[in-house]
Amino acid sequence: MKALIIYSGGMDSTTLLYKYKDEIKLALTFTYGARQDKMETSCAKENCALLGIRQMIIPLDFIGRYFKSSILAGGDNVPEGNYNEINMKSTVVPFRNGIMLSIATGLAESEGLDTVLIANHAGDHTIYPDCRPEFISAIGKAATAGTYAGIKIESPFCNITKRDVALIGKELGIDYSKTYSCYKGGKKHCGVCGTCRERKEALEGFDPTEYEE
Amino acid sequence: MKALIIYSGGMDSTTLLYKYKDEIKLALTFTYGARQDKMETSCAKENCALLGIRQMIIPLDFIGRYFKSSILAGGDNVPEGNYNEINMKSTVVPFRNGIMLSIATGLAESEGLDTVLIANHAGDHTIYPDCRPEFISAIGKAATAGTYAGIKIESPFCNITKRDVALIGKELGIDYSKTYSCYKGGKKHCGVCGTCRERKEALEGFDPTEYEE
Repeated sequence: MKALIIYSGGMDSTTLLYKYKDEIKLALTFTYGARQDKMETSCAKENCALLGIRQMIIPLDFIGRYFKSSILAGGDNVPEGNYNEINMKSTVVPFRNGIMLSIATGLAESEGLDTVLIANHAGDHTIYPDCRPEFISAIGKAATAGTYAGIKIESPFCNITKRDVALIGKELGIDYSKTYSCYKGGKKHCGVCGTCRERKEALEGFDPTEYEE
Repeated sequence: MKALIIYSGGMDSTTLLYKYKDEIKLALTFTYGARQDKMETSCAKENCALLGIRQMIIPLDFIGRYFKSSILAGGDNVPEGNYNEINMKSTVVPFRNGIMLSIATGLAESEGLDTVLIANHAGDHTIYPDCRPEFISAIGKAATAGTYAGIKIESPFCNITKRDVALIGKELGIDYSKTYSCYKGGKKHCGVCGTCRERKEALEGFDPTEYEE
């Protein structure tokens, strides 16, 4: 496998990066006007440098400009409290994974790679339609049919929880203080937004994060 | 149907624009560093203005920067002669339709529309994997599965030739002098590159284009 990974610098994709570090030839980081862009990207850079993995950062300015979502800089306030459907629905960036996977597929073909890795997991299914297995399977078929090389899309965490992902990372010895999750985008994790709560639950017992609250 | 159309300003998408003008609420034009960007976009603007259709122009700078293709400004020379596989393969921009369709799908969801229209036709199948029916069908399933609204992708010309498309346009009274095809991107159509030859064949008998040669 010669893989390209979609790599944000969050917990899940960092775990995927370390798990497949020998097969990954290129890490692709997208910025799109979200509050957490800066902190996440800085973690992503640090981990790529540590592992000696080539990284490209691609800004998707049109998302911040034309798409509606509470996590975008101009959007509504980020919801606090649990990571459940009603609460988090406003944080959806429509078809974000579709867009990132398509760009990654074109770039993989351009670079002579054969596989695109993405770190969506089972905990995302309820809220984000473009994290569900049906979506991943269909976009995978589109990537294979739509390229000369028959690029494959692989989603190794698709059917396990974020807690399971964290346990894999613990096993691999990942330093999760070098990852970022908070939708508010502050220097420290806020500790109360939906993704911070989800992070806390996943890392319970070995959480190195400094939270504001 | 409340549709968004991927609209370049070429012959095929202009025909689609006129055919579905009453259902189209938004025309989405992408620029990506191709030689023909400027001339095509100017035609696209003119037709949207004539029909009173709202238009967004989204620059995809990363394609010109990171992707390899002879039609991109820094790429190899554009091949002349017939529009056949060997000759035209270098003009492929990897997974371009996948990328444009994914962005269009996210934007359609964001704008409360239900359908994305694209004007690929049967003459593109040999050279461009992301114009083939298998690809269109798979990406359509991905768009529906990956959005709350279940966005649909429609490709009305997928199984007809460019000549058939031109005959539909003739019937609709489209002025094809307000469309652009040449991969060289000059003010006049060169008349000898692969797409110019394809254009000539499609419009034979009613071609209003002024060619260089």
